[in-house]
Amino acid sequence: MGEPASPAPLRVGILGIGGYTGAELLRLVLGHPRLSLAWAGARENAGRRLGDVLPGTEGVAGVAELRIEAFVEEDAARLAETIDVVFACLPHAASARACAALYRAGLRVVDLSADFRLRDRAVYEEWYGPHPAPELLAAAVYGQPELHREELPGARLIAAPGCYPTSSVLPLAPLVAAGLVEIEGVVIDAKSGVSGAGRSPSPVTHLPEASEGLRPYKVAGTHRHVPEIEQELSRAAGAELRVTFTPHLAPMSRGISTTAYARARAGATAERCREAARARYASGLVSVLPEGRLPDTLWVRGSARAHVAYALDPRTSIVVAMCAIDNLARGASAQALQALNLALGWPDALGLPEVGLFP
Amino acid sequence: MGEPASPAPLRVGILGIGGYTGAELLRLVLGHPRLSLAWAGARENAGRRLGDVLPGTEGVAGVAELRIEAFVEEDAARLAETIDVVFACLPHAASARACAALYRAGLRVVDLSADFRLRDRAVYEEWYGPHPAPELLAAAVYGQPELHREELPGARLIAAPGCYPTSSVLPLAPLVAAGLVEIEGVVIDAKSGVSGAGRSPSPVTHLPEASEGLRPYKVAGTHRHVPEIEQELSRAAGAELRVTFTPHLAPMSRGISTTAYARARAGATAERCREAARARYASGLVSVLPEGRLPDTLWVRGSARAHVAYALDPRTSIVVAMCAIDNLARGASAQALQALNLALGWPDALGLPEVGLFP
Amino acid sequence: MGEPASPAPLRVGILGIGGYTGAELLRLVLGHPRLSLAWAGARENAGRRLGDVLPGTEGVAGVAELRIEAFVEEDAARLAETIDVVFACLPHAASARACAALYRAGLRVVDLSADFRLRDRAVYEEWYGPHPAPELLAAAVYGQPELHREELPGARLIAAPGCYPTSSVLPLAPLVAAGLVEIEGVVIDAKSGVSGAGRSPSPVTHLPEASEGLRPYKVAGTHRHVPEIEQELSRAAGAELRVTFTPHLAPMSRGISTTAYARARAGATAERCREAARARYASGLVSVLPEGRLPDTLWVRGSARAHVAYALDPRTSIVVAMCAIDNLARGASAQALQALNLALGWPDALGLPEVGLFP
Amino acid sequence: MGEPASPAPLRVGILGIGGYTGAELLRLVLGHPRLSLAWAGARENAGRRLGDVLPGTEGVAGVAELRIEAFVEEDAARLAETIDVVFACLPHAASARACAALYRAGLRVVDLSADFRLRDRAVYEEWYGPHPAPELLAAAVYGQPELHREELPGARLIAAPGCYPTSSVLPLAPLVAAGLVEIEGVVIDAKSGVSGAGRSPSPVTHLPEASEGLRPYKVAGTHRHVPEIEQELSRAAGAELRVTFTPHLAPMSRGISTTAYARARAGATAERCREAARARYASGLVSVLPEGRLPDTLWVRGSARAHVAYALDPRTSIVVAMCAIDNLARGASAQALQALNLALGWPDALGLPEVGLFP
Repeated sequence: MGEPASPAPLRVGILGIGGYTGAELLRLVLGHPRLSLAWAGARENAGRRLGDVLPGTEGVAGVAELRIEAFVEEDAARLAETIDVVFACLPHAASARACAALYRAGLRVVDLSADFRLRDRAVYEEWYGPHPAPELLAAAVYGQPELHREELPGARLIAAPGCYPTSSVLPLAPLVAAGLVEIEGVVIDAKSGVSGAGRSPSPVTHLPEASEGLRPYKVAGTHRHVPEIEQELSRAAGAELRVTFTPHLAPMSRGISTTAYARARAGATAERCREAARARYASGLVSVLPEGRLPDTLWVRGSARAHVAYALDPRTSIVVAMCAIDNLARGASAQALQALNLALGWPDALGLPEVGLFP
Repeated sequence: MGEPASPAPLRVGILGIGGYTGAELLRLVLGHPRLSLAWAGARENAGRRLGDVLPGTEGVAGVAELRIEAFVEEDAARLAETIDVVFACLPHAASARACAALYRAGLRVVDLSADFRLRDRAVYEEWYGPHPAPELLAAAVYGQPELHREELPGARLIAAPGCYPTSSVLPLAPLVAAGLVEIEGVVIDAKSGVSGAGRSPSPVTHLPEASEGLRPYKVAGTHRHVPEIEQELSRAAGAELRVTFTPHLAPMSRGISTTAYARARAGATAERCREAARARYASGLVSVLPEGRLPDTLWVRGSARAHVAYALDPRTSIVVAMCAIDNLARGASAQALQALNLALGWPDALGLPEVGLFP
Repeated sequence: MGEPASPAPLRVGILGIGGYTGAELLRLVLGHPRLSLAWAGARENAGRRLGDVLPGTEGVAGVAELRIEAFVEEDAARLAETIDVVFACLPHAASARACAALYRAGLRVVDLSADFRLRDRAVYEEWYGPHPAPELLAAAVYGQPELHREELPGARLIAAPGCYPTSSVLPLAPLVAAGLVEIEGVVIDAKSGVSGAGRSPSPVTHLPEASEGLRPYKVAGTHRHVPEIEQELSRAAGAELRVTFTPHLAPMSRGISTTAYARARAGATAERCREAARARYASGLVSVLPEGRLPDTLWVRGSARAHVAYALDPRTSIVVAMCAIDNLARGASAQALQALNLALGWPDALGLPEVGLFP
Repeated sequence: MGEPASPAPLRVGILGIGGYTGAELLRLVLGHPRLSLAWAGARENAGRRLGDVLPGTEGVAGVAELRIEAFVEEDAARLAETIDVVFACLPHAASARACAALYRAGLRVVDLSADFRLRDRAVYEEWYGPHPAPELLAAAVYGQPELHREELPGARLIAAPGCYPTSSVLPLAPLVAAGLVEIEGVVIDAKSGVSGAGRSPSPVTHLPEASEGLRPYKVAGTHRHVPEIEQELSRAAGAELRVTFTPHLAPMSRGISTTAYARARAGATAERCREAARARYASGLVSVLPEGRLPDTLWVRGSARAHVAYALDPRTSIVVAMCAIDNLARGASAQALQALNLALGWPDALGLPEVGLFP
């Protein structure tokens, strides 16, 4: 893809390219006019041709024949000579160690793991264990572009948000910020495609047991994304809040559909909710759907955009806030690129698909 | 399944055999030791071989060659001479008219439409329009076998419950009956396979637009199943309650996964919820899952059983009540047969698959 | 289904109950009027509650609480006192060892592995390695009910056919037997649901990589089912023949759709092909579809029936022979039960679903 | 997407934007650095906001608010003042009429219907009825970029190939051209996702009846793509040939997997087949997979590339030629854009995704 863009493109490295968020980054970087893929690293696939790990690249000049390299922290300084930015798509803890080395070597780093998302080290360690690089928490910017727009320009360590938090926070943040709903008793019911579980096969992703199976899991506050959701919604609300969050695995590959419930405060209407969201998302890549339309994961596949919509149940005074995203695009890799765009002073949408694959 | 079938089997007619609940009834009646298929009727497919409408019957002696008959109300008396029981799988209003004629002709009637589910005619007419046979509402028994066990023996007009109400009422009824949760503020988030939309193709069931699409619809109290859910939960609670109900279409054929949220009353625990459900469902076909297991539509496909489970979020004091059913089996046709079994004094499970198709 | 079940039912054991063919046997045995489940064995799941391995059984009296037992060959004699028939659903070689012990202990054995399917030990060993019990090959009957009807009555060791061979041999056998097609140059193109790969997760069954992936595999004569197909078609033709066989993995759970191509001999027409099939399958559970209808895996899910159809391309004089089966039902467990029915002198269809789950 | 490209971009119109190939063109045009969307037309959706017809565009500046216009042939001259190129995504016959008017008005036209694909008017009329603009057949170039590379530069009327012909011709053309296989007796077995049937819902695309259904249709030479396949393969072979072609509907949205069979001539090996394909496809967007790898629709979703691979069955001397494409991308819209790129003297891949959406 791409005409030569006038300035030399930034050289990008992807660490963990064989997983889903790494592969999605590859797709997006190849379509970005000011980025070029310069390095591919991984833990398990080191030494293999990229075309063997991601056969979709087969035949693409300069890509399929790329040899995936192992990465050890000692390589960071050397790597900093050949690339400008690195995306880390590793499991938590491993990611923090790699990111710390790369960051210290002077690279701009976007981390797609959970390691730099939580502001409070104690909360992190309660859910994930000892933090390998707590001294960098202060340097990291939470990469939700619409909600952290002021902090991103110039950021050198970006924590790309989780997929469930993205789909939970985007529809609710404008409501709690505007005081349209009570901040107590918020219920978030999220349904995710199974690509969210990663590329490793398991019984819950085994097609015969997944293709007609829809099920809740990690219910009642036990999912690791709960503290991230609460951190960001509390920030938006300006007060501590807790949520009841239920993730579900749905029989599809990509996508998260989230339906959240909050008690309306006096004066709240669906239209006021839309207005609050439109105001909050005047810039960026969140589409507030017109009245009468509801979000559908169908329409955001492969897209950098999130779709949100609102309704009010007049019989129960409950606001229903809904969101659809592609968990790998807006929920991970495209959002990470959008955050990078802002860090570099570029427009949100530069090089990003705003219209997904349909059907 | 099983039981020696010494006496002559009851002769069954299915009206609306070409739709999904009709086809599911056909499958189940063929496997029932005390029922035999004696008549097939339909509105659109009249005159056609059953094998042409349901090719899965092709080659099955006595089934594929069956000629589907049109039904007009004047036929009721004649039909009453050749069959004993009729299942009506027609759209609402049309169903009530047919059922009224068949019932008056002396037949035992199981209606799978909404026409006789709502006790209050005014509520029915608010949602569905004029009731064609309101004088029969008092004769009809709501065919939820576990919750209306006492009313079913001898019933001659059975209103088979809706699919969403089944998956919403079964997990919650024991809780509201036992006073374990507040009856205000109940939220029900349900995800249904698209067979719930029936056999007529439409954009939301078109595979390219459905197979990776998950979406809410008819949100904020606008779905017709709301009054039925509220009727049955209010009955269980012994007090009027209202719910916030959100249906979703999920990219699968069969199954409903429902996750409901209610505020715990003092003393409520997940185990007490399970105990209440076990007590309520000591008889019948509702499986209360052991601690640590959650319902999955995968496990109930084609089965007459509902699976329910409970959790309590200790951080928010919200009880999470979950249910999985097959919308066409437990949510429609198998439940209708279970209700008929009770009406005839037979065991709940007679002739019904309690173990579904796996995978 | 049905039949008065006056005599005491036969006691059935299932070895390998946690896999897909074992689970399917469980479903079918529970619906069979003259069989009762008396023992469940497995290699990996020994000691576990059946309800934990197959949650679909949860709540079913006498099933969910069944404890799965390990099996070692020394147990065979003891087992023979409590059960009458055993189905073995183990991997090849392990299956032959178990079956040999059980058979020698006096049990009737139905083997769902490949171990007793190939008449020629040398061919077996070329594809599978050393045969653990070659001395039993002569005792085994190939359990294709329609094509080995004369050999099955009284059989004590039945080799249930493979899924691809079932879907390949059923449509072609009548044609080669009747001399309607050339036996050279037969091409068989088969598309299978991924449940054929078993219950162990792997990259090719991982939903995100399988749900929109259709791919050939083990092409050009390298699939182990090739010798079985050739054995049975050669037997039907009365002459040695070879086939070009290509299996494909299709993005569905159950089902095999097979399209086979053979050069028409003079005088062959589609109608003559149908006539030959109707004659061959006058008894049994193979449905020859009427002109104008083509087989669809949709219509045979969960069914014991195979659907076959024929066309002739007049421009190229190629006969197109098509078949649809459920790989786990007709292609494995239901066919195994049908063969057992014949071995015991019962009707083919006794206790078997002839109409599948629709939709 | 997109940095400003230095020269003014070409203004593109899409006629039939609400269908799948139109929507796919929209996605691709938005990502193309030298094209801009300037007009959207349709037959059924005229007057509607694009965001209401394709909700995936919602929120995208300049796209969602676009008003779809009706098109009558009298508009062609006026339209020619505001756009440079038009893609026609209409049904056959309607397309020819529109294309003729647009072409005569001076526009460059890419027709995605079948109207200008067949060189022989008589053949067209046998399959499709009277041709509305036969006088333009001579002007049209068949837009298979790799096989008609010399004819495309400067072309003003391009007939974009059909999806099945693309997946059938690409793997076989190098073999018949190189004399590696007999041209008699070629069998082509193709499996397509249901998006190939278009955006109009129908029973065969209804998810409950499609998601576990795989079935042949229009067998034995009755599919309209047969003459197009034969035209192109005959051209490659330099001799008339006929094929036996069987299309199948597979339970997925996008993708065609084609497996073709041809008798090997003396000396043919899989490696020689690969060599012939590599030579033929040294330029362009066809990836010849390395030995041991087979095409999978998974890897080409949303991609402009076709993947081909070869095997030889040594036991039967049959060459197995395989191909995977995305029916809407390489099989329709992306290929149409690739042909336009060549017509304009641009590189094949300009602006086109060569790496698809994974997973």
